[in-house]
Amino acid sequence: MSLSPLIQQLINALRALPGVGPKSAQRMAFHLLEREQDAALVLSRVLEKSVNELGRCQSCSTLSETDVCPLCSDLSRNPKQMCVVETPMDVLALEQTGSFNGFYYVLGGHLSPLDGIGPDDIGISALVLRVQEQVVEELILATNPTVEGEATAHYIAEQLRDLPVKVTRIAHGVPVGGELEYVDGGTLAHALAGRRKI
Amino acid sequence: MSLSPLIQQLINALRALPGVGPKSAQRMAFHLLEREQDAALVLSRVLEKSVNELGRCQSCSTLSETDVCPLCSDLSRNPKQMCVVETPMDVLALEQTGSFNGFYYVLGGHLSPLDGIGPDDIGISALVLRVQEQVVEELILATNPTVEGEATAHYIAEQLRDLPVKVTRIAHGVPVGGELEYVDGGTLAHALAGRRKI
Repeated sequence: MSLSPLIQQLINALRALPGVGPKSAQRMAFHLLEREQDAALVLSRVLEKSVNELGRCQSCSTLSETDVCPLCSDLSRNPKQMCVVETPMDVLALEQTGSFNGFYYVLGGHLSPLDGIGPDDIGISALVLRVQEQVVEELILATNPTVEGEATAHYIAEQLRDLPVKVTRIAHGVPVGGELEYVDGGTLAHALAGRRKI
Repeated sequence: MSLSPLIQQLINALRALPGVGPKSAQRMAFHLLEREQDAALVLSRVLEKSVNELGRCQSCSTLSETDVCPLCSDLSRNPKQMCVVETPMDVLALEQTGSFNGFYYVLGGHLSPLDGIGPDDIGISALVLRVQEQVVEELILATNPTVEGEATAHYIAEQLRDLPVKVTRIAHGVPVGGELEYVDGGTLAHALAGRRKI
């Protein structure tokens, strides 16, 4: 290839981004170099700083640059509700709904015996301890609606069975704005079973 | 927003990439921070190095980390053919076809009187000088098939009318693999007018 080696390196490095194939990486590289040099330098610096300075929140394990994340430091939130999610991205997704005002607990994944990921690898014992110590009244299990996410939710519910905490699972049902026709059978069955009086 | 400020900065910085909206930027930020920290550091370093070290090739004006780019330094190429393109990305696209073995000349844009971009801003006088000095026998105009690209190609052809150089324009026609039904009228008219004996 007759391309400048440095451009080729940049194209390769951009492929680390999710959903970016060879063509998009090329387009991104030339766009940054030709039109967005300042923005590219900002991206370079913020990227390095983020990787080096972001760690885990001591309280909820989400990504944070401080020992305790802004959410866990927010005293106006309701300490009686705790929501268990798989990833920091899920925290963001739930926060953006504006419908939850309690605290979060990030597992960092789901149970996956085949990959050797057991309860301790995703902090379930720490979660049980946390629920025992804190005055959590309701623990909302918001793991993904996948086989692994369901299994993880059930395992956690099992561990907490003898504690005085209400354990709930987010509802399955038809997505808002969708059409019934295109909803899969499993989801539709859940939506029927979970029907509510209006 | 309760997100760590550093993550928010990273998400904003990623928006500088072409075709990346707020949702994709979020996904990219968390993906890099959670799963690709090493690749993120590599990207950060290569990005900084690229912006700082890449300049223009003295000969063809494409992006290059050396004074003369690898293509212009390649003595095995045919100096009698020169291909004029708008951007370094076009050089790459043409090189990837493997159908051209001459030299390139990168304009860095197209004529655009409304934006104040005239012949000197895209190096047309330098190109004319180059053609006079060098033994270029054929100059292939491969500017984009847009109104501005066509105008630029015609302007260049006009400037070279009195020189002993054959000036050609890449063919317009139906794209390979497409269906006639979906090809626009202008392209179809060009394809008919440019028909060749088989």
